[in-house]
Order: sequence, then structure tokens, then C-alpha cells
Amino acid sequence: MNQLDATFSALADPTRRAIVARLAEGSATVNELAAPFDISLPAISRHLKVLEGAKLISREIEGQKRRCHLQPETLNSATDWIEQTRAFWTDSLDALETYLDESNT
Amino acid sequence: MNQLDATFSALADPTRRAIVARLAEGSATVNELAAPFDISLPAISRHLKVLEGAKLISREIEGQKRRCHLQPETLNSATDWIEQTRAFWTDSLDALETYLDESNT
Repeated sequence: MNQLDATFSALADPTRRAIVARLAEGSATVNELAAPFDISLPAISRHLKVLEGAKLISREIEGQKRRCHLQPETLNSATDWIEQTRAFWTDSLDALETYLDESNT
Repeated sequence: MNQLDATFSALADPTRRAIVARLAEGSATVNELAAPFDISLPAISRHLKVLEGAKLISREIEGQKRRCHLQPETLNSATDWIEQTRAFWTDSLDALETYLDESNT
């Protein structure tokens, strides 16, 4: 699986997106991350493993706890791919046709 | 599966991303889309079905053929989610700490 496959696949789950959104506000322990969700700690751990495998988060040991951090550069590469694709579309004849169709209605 | 789940899941495959990138340059028939790939037409059809289910593309019948179009607004919603998350991160203390760490090295 290449990096973009792993990134998009990791983001294709609402719990994992909520964890990423939470970590965007600052690092957190596994317990802190699990608190808002009505799912077990092992289930949260599996989601964290997927996110770590996709390089969307990193984990560091802090005493007895593990603290999770967002790896924002991985989000950047996902946005870069989408933005590049949108730029191709904006330059294409299809975009012009859609614009003209919408202008005529 | 909600819309963002479907979008990110559909983009988590290199062949599907290549199809989306091709359609960003303009609409195409199924045969035209299949041409660059060393995979069977049924396999391409399965990818198109996933992309259509995720509302990333639409298909219209054109005589004996089916013509595929990009649905760029679905890409927009994926970018919106990532951009919002990045904006939270940019405002967070973690972003400041990373900046300071990098400035000190």
C-alpha cells in the first residue's frame, strides 16, 4: 500500500477522523482520546494503530502513558493530491461547459 | 457509510485515483478510461461503480457507450474536511511547539 492509499484509507472512518480532528487541537493520551467515544480501549488502540501506520499520528511514551500527536504533513500530501486534481478540472473544457450550463439556467 | 467515508475510501486506491485524475482533464468513455491500464474491463467497471457510489463520478449513456464525468463538488467536501482540520492544528499549541523546535535546530 502506498502512502496516499494508506492516508485516504485511514481517513475513511468517522472515529479515526474524529481522533485526527481532536489531535489537531493538541496532543492527547490514549485515555483522553478514548473518553468521548462509546467504544472500548482496545478498539481505540486499533484505530490508533491504523492512523500511526498511515503516518497521520505519532505516539511517544510518557511515563506509563502514551501520548499521541498529529503528523500534519501527511494531511498536506492528501490535500496536495486533491488540489492538483481540482486544478486539472478547473482548466478543463468540462468545467467551462458546466459553467455555461449553469449560466443558462 | 457516510459521504466522507465513501469519498476517502474510494480515493484509497491508485487505479481509482488515476481514473479521477484522468476525468479531471475531461469526460471519457469506459473504453478510453480502461486504455492506459493493464487490467480487465470488468475490473475497471468495478472501480467505476465504487467511484459512482461515492459520487466522485457520474455516468451517462451516449448511444451504445457510457460516458463518465467527474463530480468535482465531492472532491471539494473532502478538501474542506482536511483544510478545517489543518486550520485547527495551525491554531494549536502543538503547531507553535513544532515551530519553536524547528527554529532551535
